[in-house]
Amino acid sequence: MRTIVQKFGGTSVGSIERIQHVANTVIRAYEEGMSIVTVVSAMGHHTDELVDLAKQINPDANKREMDMLLSTGEQVSISLLAMAIQAKGYKAISLTGWQAGVQTESIHSNARINHIDTTRIQQFLNEDYIVIVAGFQGISSENEITTLGRGGSDTTAVALAAALKAERCDIYTDVTGVYTTDPRMVKAASKLSYVSYDEMLELAALGAGVLHPRAVEFAKNYQIKLQVRSSQIDEIGTFIGEDIEMEQQTVVRGIAFESDITRMTLNGLFNRVDLLPSIFTLLAREGIDVDIIIHSVTSDNLVNLSFSINSVSMIHAIKLLEDNKEQLGYVSIDVEGELAKVSIVGSGMVSNPGVAAKMFQYLGEQGITIKMVSTSEIKVSTVISKTDLEKAVHALHSSFELDSISKLQVVEK
Amino acid sequence: MRTIVQKFGGTSVGSIERIQHVANTVIRAYEEGMSIVTVVSAMGHHTDELVDLAKQINPDANKREMDMLLSTGEQVSISLLAMAIQAKGYKAISLTGWQAGVQTESIHSNARINHIDTTRIQQFLNEDYIVIVAGFQGISSENEITTLGRGGSDTTAVALAAALKAERCDIYTDVTGVYTTDPRMVKAASKLSYVSYDEMLELAALGAGVLHPRAVEFAKNYQIKLQVRSSQIDEIGTFIGEDIEMEQQTVVRGIAFESDITRMTLNGLFNRVDLLPSIFTLLAREGIDVDIIIHSVTSDNLVNLSFSINSVSMIHAIKLLEDNKEQLGYVSIDVEGELAKVSIVGSGMVSNPGVAAKMFQYLGEQGITIKMVSTSEIKVSTVISKTDLEKAVHALHSSFELDSISKLQVVEK
Repeated sequence: MRTIVQKFGGTSVGSIERIQHVANTVIRAYEEGMSIVTVVSAMGHHTDELVDLAKQINPDANKREMDMLLSTGEQVSISLLAMAIQAKGYKAISLTGWQAGVQTESIHSNARINHIDTTRIQQFLNEDYIVIVAGFQGISSENEITTLGRGGSDTTAVALAAALKAERCDIYTDVTGVYTTDPRMVKAASKLSYVSYDEMLELAALGAGVLHPRAVEFAKNYQIKLQVRSSQIDEIGTFIGEDIEMEQQTVVRGIAFESDITRMTLNGLFNRVDLLPSIFTLLAREGIDVDIIIHSVTSDNLVNLSFSINSVSMIHAIKLLEDNKEQLGYVSIDVEGELAKVSIVGSGMVSNPGVAAKMFQYLGEQGITIKMVSTSEIKVSTVISKTDLEKAVHALHSSFELDSISKLQVVEK
Repeated sequence: MRTIVQKFGGTSVGSIERIQHVANTVIRAYEEGMSIVTVVSAMGHHTDELVDLAKQINPDANKREMDMLLSTGEQVSISLLAMAIQAKGYKAISLTGWQAGVQTESIHSNARINHIDTTRIQQFLNEDYIVIVAGFQGISSENEITTLGRGGSDTTAVALAAALKAERCDIYTDVTGVYTTDPRMVKAASKLSYVSYDEMLELAALGAGVLHPRAVEFAKNYQIKLQVRSSQIDEIGTFIGEDIEMEQQTVVRGIAFESDITRMTLNGLFNRVDLLPSIFTLLAREGIDVDIIIHSVTSDNLVNLSFSINSVSMIHAIKLLEDNKEQLGYVSIDVEGELAKVSIVGSGMVSNPGVAAKMFQYLGEQGITIKMVSTSEIKVSTVISKTDLEKAVHALHSSFELDSISKLQVVEK
């Protein structure tokens, strides 16, 4: 029997009407003769309401109790979805994380999945049930309810697809697929019919919430084919899998961007073995994500160190660095806020050496100054002034000929 | 270590403020040096809200999925109560029904507890945790979440007290104890310091929700001492245990009553072996509870059969009986609605033969006609006109000298 795992996020099951709609979508796939396992998140704002209740009682609530509380959210949505499917005359059964055999680390609020014991799911699939599984949650070896943290339901879905050797994992979301860039900024943005795992990881920043990077990595490791598609409109979405030759002709697949970047530069550092670890461990421990790092050493063994962070962490980072000035041994800090990052992404780049140069040229033609550069095999990122962002994205999207991408590319089935 | 099981109902944990108040009550008992296991219900109207959601999706929702849905209610309240206790600096841990080892029959929405595996609770008690257990829910041998139906949380508490060999089970509720009659009707009603299990069973009708009969029976079977007390006011409540000699001096302990009774009489029945089973199985199968049954056979082997039901079931019962007229073989049905039942309750009655006669006399003095009578070892019930109910309750409460009961009776510790 061919099995498909589907995942519906909180917005998709945010109301009774939407749950009914999801039930129809699930039944349509079932009627195509597939075995269906559907993973759902908590209803819309349900999780926020529970978090709010907890905060009123204990602003610094115990993580174990938070998992106990928050895991009720998915338990509500799985039972309602099962009822909705049953009301339409189909066999459905809901399973919590622990009932579905989702075994995790003994860590609360951010556990990783160790293993999925699919015995029970398989048994219900064999009896022709549509199986509804609570996303985001699992059980530890001590029989404690755990949650998987951000992107948890996506991860549950992909992990189930791997454990069940499913043909595909369909991620239903509020967009119709993965675009060449954010359609809200560039009207000419077009939906990609296919992207590789690596491209998806780099493009994730394009639409926050489309698909969590953790789930993409999981899918890549277990070679699970994904499809990102709309929960509202019934059309084929974007497929995600390994690189396929045919697609390589389009070198740049998408333009990703991020605003609210701050660049920090530490001056007068003396180069020593523990310099970088001590600085970046300090920031990581406080939850400050560092993105681009530029590190160069002058002839007199002094270091120029610049790095970019999200602007929301700016004040926090400055305070942290100042508090540790003596230990770190720098002379001064330069801070430049109001920056943005724009990236070109594409698996074909690795075999097309001139792509980065073209990017710099296109930006230069627009009079845009580049403040930082970072490259990877499938991505070139530049940090520019925030006021230049929109102009840069439009220019790159059009210059790399993404405006004209056919919406009817070859679709991997 | 002395263990006490406490139970707080939905009203007691109906808001953040009330949960904080419950946390203080729990901590007070803990500070007295007791091991504490606290059973809680779902927050106030939470269950109703969930039922409403389900009804919108499927008015005839699957019981298994209803259990999945409704069991989230207690899971929310146990985690919030644990957080509240932790916020006050005490060790607390919440456990769902399945985590607490509450093993039930494989029946949904109305399962009975088979066994409680207290290993995990005991482990946490040994580590000085206050253990918070979700009431009303358990797990079947197939690892399905089950619920215990009406009075479920009371039953969970009493069953835990039995399994843990607890010293006592305190039922916290919105009244300060068990009264000689409903204080809303009779101002002179007074709180009983002690009642026996059997009396409590008969008095249960006095205040619906004070303590579920099922829990009282459980307590009687396992000889668990109960205390019904207020969750709002810190005072000693009513203790419930086996009969004690001292209390027998007061023959009548309380006046129970119920309005909205309908009497139905079937005329012209021919007496045959399967007559009573066929009539009452018919009613029971449709969920119609029959209370008093009066059955007499005349010399020519004809039967006069009267029984009382709650008036809400009247239409339903008439239709049912008419639909089966031929099979049952009666000639006509008489129906009298707008009736009420008033009962005197007391363990001492069995050794005081004149009590029933006194009751009839007191009612007769008020000009009240008795329509039906039913007696048990510790209760005499009469069915009268609904318009006579208030007069009857007052007369009996005063004639049996309950108005003057001392509020300072001997308290069983």
